[in-house]
Amino acid sequence: MPFSFTLEATDPQTAARAGRIRTDHGDVLTPAFMPVGTAGSVKTLTPDDLRAAGCDILLSNTYHLSLRPGVETVAALGGLHRFMGWPGAILTDSGGFQVMSLSPLRRVTDAGVEFRSHLDGSRHVIGPEDATDIQDGLGSDIAMALDEPVPLPAEPDAVRSAVDRTLRWAARSLAERERLRENGRGGMALFGIVQGGTDRDERARCFERLGAMAFDGFALGGLWVGEGRRLGLEMVEHDCAAFPAGKPRYLMGVGHPVDVVEAMARGVDMMDCVLPTRNARRGTVFISTGRLVVKNAAYARDERPLDPACDCATCARFSRAYLRHLFAANELLGMRLTSVHAVHAMVALVRRAREAVLGGRYDAFRAEFLERYHSGETLAREAPVH
Amino acid sequence: MPFSFTLEATDPQTAARAGRIRTDHGDVLTPAFMPVGTAGSVKTLTPDDLRAAGCDILLSNTYHLSLRPGVETVAALGGLHRFMGWPGAILTDSGGFQVMSLSPLRRVTDAGVEFRSHLDGSRHVIGPEDATDIQDGLGSDIAMALDEPVPLPAEPDAVRSAVDRTLRWAARSLAERERLRENGRGGMALFGIVQGGTDRDERARCFERLGAMAFDGFALGGLWVGEGRRLGLEMVEHDCAAFPAGKPRYLMGVGHPVDVVEAMARGVDMMDCVLPTRNARRGTVFISTGRLVVKNAAYARDERPLDPACDCATCARFSRAYLRHLFAANELLGMRLTSVHAVHAMVALVRRAREAVLGGRYDAFRAEFLERYHSGETLAREAPVH
Repeated sequence: MPFSFTLEATDPQTAARAGRIRTDHGDVLTPAFMPVGTAGSVKTLTPDDLRAAGCDILLSNTYHLSLRPGVETVAALGGLHRFMGWPGAILTDSGGFQVMSLSPLRRVTDAGVEFRSHLDGSRHVIGPEDATDIQDGLGSDIAMALDEPVPLPAEPDAVRSAVDRTLRWAARSLAERERLRENGRGGMALFGIVQGGTDRDERARCFERLGAMAFDGFALGGLWVGEGRRLGLEMVEHDCAAFPAGKPRYLMGVGHPVDVVEAMARGVDMMDCVLPTRNARRGTVFISTGRLVVKNAAYARDERPLDPACDCATCARFSRAYLRHLFAANELLGMRLTSVHAVHAMVALVRRAREAVLGGRYDAFRAEFLERYHSGETLAREAPVH
Repeated sequence: MPFSFTLEATDPQTAARAGRIRTDHGDVLTPAFMPVGTAGSVKTLTPDDLRAAGCDILLSNTYHLSLRPGVETVAALGGLHRFMGWPGAILTDSGGFQVMSLSPLRRVTDAGVEFRSHLDGSRHVIGPEDATDIQDGLGSDIAMALDEPVPLPAEPDAVRSAVDRTLRWAARSLAERERLRENGRGGMALFGIVQGGTDRDERARCFERLGAMAFDGFALGGLWVGEGRRLGLEMVEHDCAAFPAGKPRYLMGVGHPVDVVEAMARGVDMMDCVLPTRNARRGTVFISTGRLVVKNAAYARDERPLDPACDCATCARFSRAYLRHLFAANELLGMRLTSVHAVHAMVALVRRAREAVLGGRYDAFRAEFLERYHSGETLAREAPVH
């Protein structure tokens, strides 16, 4: 099996870690930020752009790809890496979360999730075996076991029942990968997902069983869905304390720079989120000193790059004034250039975090990052935003 | 003055020419195809993409830029080249044609064109002096004299009166550049535009006067506006026969590969058109064997590049199947990748044409191009289109 995880360092004052994941598609340095390539592309960007931003792993959405162009088509074209021309590693989600958020109709039973496509209304059923098979067909390096997320707030009974089902599906996902391996397939790593919402005891109960299964890594599910940063980080701290040191920990759906820095301090190794790139396409970027709204009239003649401290291809060549003009004129190039910055900035952030852990100074790194992020330097004044 | 034109060769059997324009922003090889960067970007593409496609000159629209972000802003930011990060040459149109096609209200008098902005309805008047000043303010390498195009079909009187006004405005444009030069500005080249619709005599009368003025080059205006390819090419042949050999000839708004090849055969040195890139963004590309509709279901598992004979960055890395998927999923990357191909294909076409002229074999080049273009090889069958 090509997949392995090596823990290279743990910060002495925080729980931050530096590691390395080995895959069939190269090494992934951790902490890692995974840009999201929902439908087979990280919107507006090419694989070369992602490489230039230092990216070594991206996330793709199984739900979207299995509906269009379909796993058979992707498999016939040599798998997702070849299809999209991406030489690095790919983590795929199980599709469960996307079904819950996008499908207009769905019904969850022990067999799986029955849903209608948001594209054409066609009926589908996806169980843990299907989710495992589809991710294998896509050629994923790291697949996720199908889980049942619970929309918050939820009654304790609903949380408990979702944890139970998540555990049953986790076991079936692993069994399906075993079956695939007996047939010469299933080379991918498989991660189990901890559910339990914001109930510490339920999360602990979930991991007690999950941790005994042969997963290659563990994910923190059901968080950053409205519970707030403080509570979310409490759950992260609690989960990570229970996780084994020798396997990677993946916090799903987190991408605000402040959340990323705080989650890394609590021992998270991998994160993904559409936030930086979606924001970028809407004309808002995170820079080292805060949140910059590109369209702000104050930038109309600002010759500085988006982030004077950034060395991405966009900041190296284009001014705020030009980017503001592109957004004002609805020029697609604007979205592309801010997306380049967005991916680069997140990957650069986790790379600097990694260096800090290797140097045993993550706590100072975090303090400096937060002070700078909240300084608002070089930013136009605007109404306060999160 | 940095601008010069050197005629390097004329084809022995056709009127095709090879030349070189010298500008402050590098040499422009002719025949040249100019991609259109309407609002300060060739949509979806960066200057690096354009350079990689072999592009050495692009066209920008004065009307759009003067309304947004405004010539003062562009000038304050160091001019259009610096604003958009483009190191090559820039030709600007005068704005007249765009006013006619985009402004909801306009009135033409000898003073100039009065119009309302299509963006905010604000009232503007632009005369030949203004058009010259604005293009100077943008930092254009090659500016166009303000002209009065006539929407076809037109009464002979209307054509004659538009030619007369175009001639008066041409003289005033040149006088304004002289005034600028006396003040240390106006370094740009200035081209005069031949009007007269599809009336040979009016076009001849227009050039008789225009040709006596101190223009650096001559443009063929008022063509490819619905008169049809045959009649358009007749006018091109007629105009080019009258033009002096030592100055560049620019056919405005022509970009279908077949038109480009036929126009070059008649002595045209420069062309521009949104067609290749606009088509590309809508999922249709010109390849060497015809017109390819990317979304066609026949390409769903086609591993070939858009054009197996093309060496652009898109054709080097991505399959028709992937591009079809991107368009089916409305992924912006699709528009970007087809635009890369579109610009590359047009520039590569005029470069091959140039080589053919230098080798004295343009006629054979044209015959081979047309045969291949109409072969439809590797294309899915579809309803015939132009």
